Amino acid sequence: MTERILALQPLTTEQRERLAKANVEIVDAADWKSAEPITVIFGWDPEVGPAALMAPNNQVRWIQTTSAGIDYLPLDWIRAHDIAVTNASGAFSPAIAESTIGYLLYFLRGFNEAVKNQAGHFWQRPLRSDLAMIGSQTIVIYGTGSIGQAIAKLLNGFGNQPIGVNRTGHDVPGFQSAVSLDDDSSVIKDADIIINAMPATTKTVGYFNERFFKQLDGLRIFVNVGRGKSVDEKALMNALLYQNVLHVALDVFETEPLPKTSRLWDYPNVLITPHQTGFAKDDEKPIFDMFMKNLQGWLADGKLTVNVTNPTQGY
Amino acid sequence: MTERILALQPLTTEQRERLAKANVEIVDAADWKSAEPITVIFGWDPEVGPAALMAPNNQVRWIQTTSAGIDYLPLDWIRAHDIAVTNASGAFSPAIAESTIGYLLYFLRGFNEAVKNQAGHFWQRPLRSDLAMIGSQTIVIYGTGSIGQAIAKLLNGFGNQPIGVNRTGHDVPGFQSAVSLDDDSSVIKDADIIINAMPATTKTVGYFNERFFKQLDGLRIFVNVGRGKSVDEKALMNALLYQNVLHVALDVFETEPLPKTSRLWDYPNVLITPHQTGFAKDDEKPIFDMFMKNLQGWLADGKLTVNVTNPTQGY
Repeated sequence: MTERILALQPLTTEQRERLAKANVEIVDAADWKSAEPITVIFGWDPEVGPAALMAPNNQVRWIQTTSAGIDYLPLDWIRAHDIAVTNASGAFSPAIAESTIGYLLYFLRGFNEAVKNQAGHFWQRPLRSDLAMIGSQTIVIYGTGSIGQAIAKLLNGFGNQPIGVNRTGHDVPGFQSAVSLDDDSSVIKDADIIINAMPATTKTVGYFNERFFKQLDGLRIFVNVGRGKSVDEKALMNALLYQNVLHVALDVFETEPLPKTSRLWDYPNVLITPHQTGFAKDDEKPIFDMFMKNLQGWLADGKLTVNVTNPTQGY
Repeated sequence: MTERILALQPLTTEQRERLAKANVEIVDAADWKSAEPITVIFGWDPEVGPAALMAPNNQVRWIQTTSAGIDYLPLDWIRAHDIAVTNASGAFSPAIAESTIGYLLYFLRGFNEAVKNQAGHFWQRPLRSDLAMIGSQTIVIYGTGSIGQAIAKLLNGFGNQPIGVNRTGHDVPGFQSAVSLDDDSSVIKDADIIINAMPATTKTVGYFNERFFKQLDGLRIFVNVGRGKSVDEKALMNALLYQNVLHVALDVFETEPLPKTSRLWDYPNVLITPHQTGFAKDDEKPIFDMFMKNLQGWLADGKLTVNVTNPTQGY
């Protein structure tokens, strides 16, 4: 049977040609109903995705996402029907890591104040002691997977060896050491900067809550480039109010788009970017390459090799 | 004769003790008139400095600055009286380099737009193709001395090998290649980013002028962390208007403080920081160490070894 791939991700002409050579059928989002049954989904769409996946005569056996996280997929259905999910983990990590370094420098090098002063034509030099360098910061990174490692690699270039937090506390290249999620209180008290780069799982949702932030006393910077649901935003705003945390950079949120009424927009020491840290010109290329590599294995012997996720763990 | 050091730079108690042990006299700014003759000046002050230097019975033979540039000193007088000048070159370079990477990421990662959108509670994701990564940029750095090399070293950590511009076009570690100032048109046409890190000299004052900017067509980012007088600000504003240059980050200006009436403050694609890129907590420490090392040589045999400048060249 010819595989019928529902493309919920725009394809270039060149990519369509590469797929045609592999003898698969490409079904665009608008045509999915007349093209049933679908066997593979590439990309996702919050309306077409579930409709095609759960259509009575669907034959979907594999979903290739274009994202690192898979928590927005109907995982219960996927588990119940034993559908394989491969993600794009790693494709965005270098871009996310660059954005993360940018967040740190934005605050450490005083750009946050400079931007405000510029608006008022106000020449206000900071104290030397107000500014700092990456090398001298104690940085703790939650999540030592593809994103965490990409951040650590860039930090190493600034002479910084971060501390990692992961499930078991196992050592990871680029990190001076690592502790398990259960032992993190031993390292966060001395931290200047905490970065969340964890996937959303049952263990990480809501992890950065009131209990967590109350352990901190004037943390210089908190960054979330992982998943929005890992951070209790109300608790974070209180932590800013009571100066458990002094500066915050967020790319992901409990609800996206971040509602216009959210008070987060107005906090003077919060930098908000609209889920864009992973963006970069031409970043679709590595994702399509991942898909093609998986497709070749899938067509040859039904085996997926790149970024095969475990829908039960959620990543 | 005991050396009388006029301290125009605040000294810590520990630093005063170190100087006392070296058997020199410390004269604070307020006391200089009653403490003449001064033989050494540490730091500078636009009023006390020239007054003490040119006092009738002065015996100043050496000035140790706490800055990298020396162009604000009365160089004609210094040359005529054969006074040695040592600067603090290198002490600020790592901090300046971190700020420079921060500028690049501010624009490449779309923070400039995010900051504006945040003020209006506006969730506006950029196009993937609007954002870019440091690794893929063609970067030209004017000045391959201490600052330029520190920037190149950090860029290398992002997988970027910049092109250098210096007096003779000689190779420098961290740079893929270098050209001479006279040959720079061969490299700037292909540049995405141009960074000025040159000292102010007769060759560099006004170097980035209308003739220079007209060679560019949509340069992504222009950065000045060198000297303000190297950039013709009027020409730069025209270059922004005609999109020879798209984004600009400036830490130094023709006139400092930048006048309230300058139109530069209001350009939407210009980031202005008030001559602070070199600031970092504890950055006075390496400067005082430079001074002490020079003082030891000065007391032993009248020889200065660290950062001896050539007041005729101006750096």
